[in-house]
Amino acid sequence: MTTSGTNTALLIIDMQNDAMNMVPSGAEIQPTIKRVLEYSRTNNIPVIHIVRVHRADGVDVERFRSVLFQEKPFLVEGTVGAEIVPELKPITGECIIKKTRFSGFFQTNLQLIISRLGVSTLVICGVQTPNCIRETATDALAYDYAVVLLKDAISAQTREIHEANLFDMQNMGITITTVDAYISSWNQGDQAGNGKP
Amino acid sequence: MTTSGTNTALLIIDMQNDAMNMVPSGAEIQPTIKRVLEYSRTNNIPVIHIVRVHRADGVDVERFRSVLFQEKPFLVEGTVGAEIVPELKPITGECIIKKTRFSGFFQTNLQLIISRLGVSTLVICGVQTPNCIRETATDALAYDYAVVLLKDAISAQTREIHEANLFDMQNMGITITTVDAYISSWNQGDQAGNGKP
Repeated sequence: MTTSGTNTALLIIDMQNDAMNMVPSGAEIQPTIKRVLEYSRTNNIPVIHIVRVHRADGVDVERFRSVLFQEKPFLVEGTVGAEIVPELKPITGECIIKKTRFSGFFQTNLQLIISRLGVSTLVICGVQTPNCIRETATDALAYDYAVVLLKDAISAQTREIHEANLFDMQNMGITITTVDAYISSWNQGDQAGNGKP
Repeated sequence: MTTSGTNTALLIIDMQNDAMNMVPSGAEIQPTIKRVLEYSRTNNIPVIHIVRVHRADGVDVERFRSVLFQEKPFLVEGTVGAEIVPELKPITGECIIKKTRFSGFFQTNLQLIISRLGVSTLVICGVQTPNCIRETATDALAYDYAVVLLKDAISAQTREIHEANLFDMQNMGITITTVDAYISSWNQGDQAGNGKP
């Protein structure tokens, strides 16, 4: 992974086997994410895969989820459940950031990596809208990045939750768009895909 | 401010003059917040006032709000607009944390202060539900604190936004209650006010 020639990076969040069981609608967005992933690879837009992984003993699981984890462990590092789904597997050179909380920024080196890449806009997709997507997006805002959410490449437990969260995030100044519109605006020379070249 | 004899601290967020103009419903919750504030003082529950303040030149304002700020500055440190509303003024010994982003934890020493107090539960009130309340609450979760939101001492631009955000936060494991129920549970010996003494 080298410094990007673009001002944008793609973040794909929590698209792991166990997460697909926890957020069943995640399966539906895999083809959409694959489209923007392949587009990004073709256009040399850096891709960062953000995954949640936990220790087998669960000591790094959120306190409010620890009982749940003890009953049925999830996203344990090294297991098939923690692997990124086959369709979206990282390729050589793509960065993988491991986290243990909702936000991809929380006690990870994501900010450092993005800073080195020299990008100013983060395009975000994955699961799920109210938790890992929103927390990563709002932390990105706090660090003064422009944020673009691909609404058809993000999902939640229900359509209502998904929409209510997109509404809030739009109010915060986050750009909400679709994969097609993003790719189209990029092709038209707006690298940020957000109407602000 | 000394180490607390309780396991709980009260966080009051953004109850400042300019914020009341930005979130008009904030005026309605002042009496409710005052009730829990006075109760906390009487019962030696530590109170932390979290405020948003900006430099007059706005260089520390979120990028997405900087145009808005240049047009009409808000929450500028040292101005009346940045002061806490008269009804909820801090008293000697209460901590004031200054922030420039949604979350009270973002680049402040809030976590350090709470850690020193030795508390495990944070009771949160103020404005507004989808932004500063939610970001502070979810960061508190990430740091493994138990979080209690006083839903009648928190407000947003609309009732729908308020409710949708409470719904999401309840799903994350945050306890949603009222000031009366919180005070009542505290009086019954449940210091966390969340049904988990």
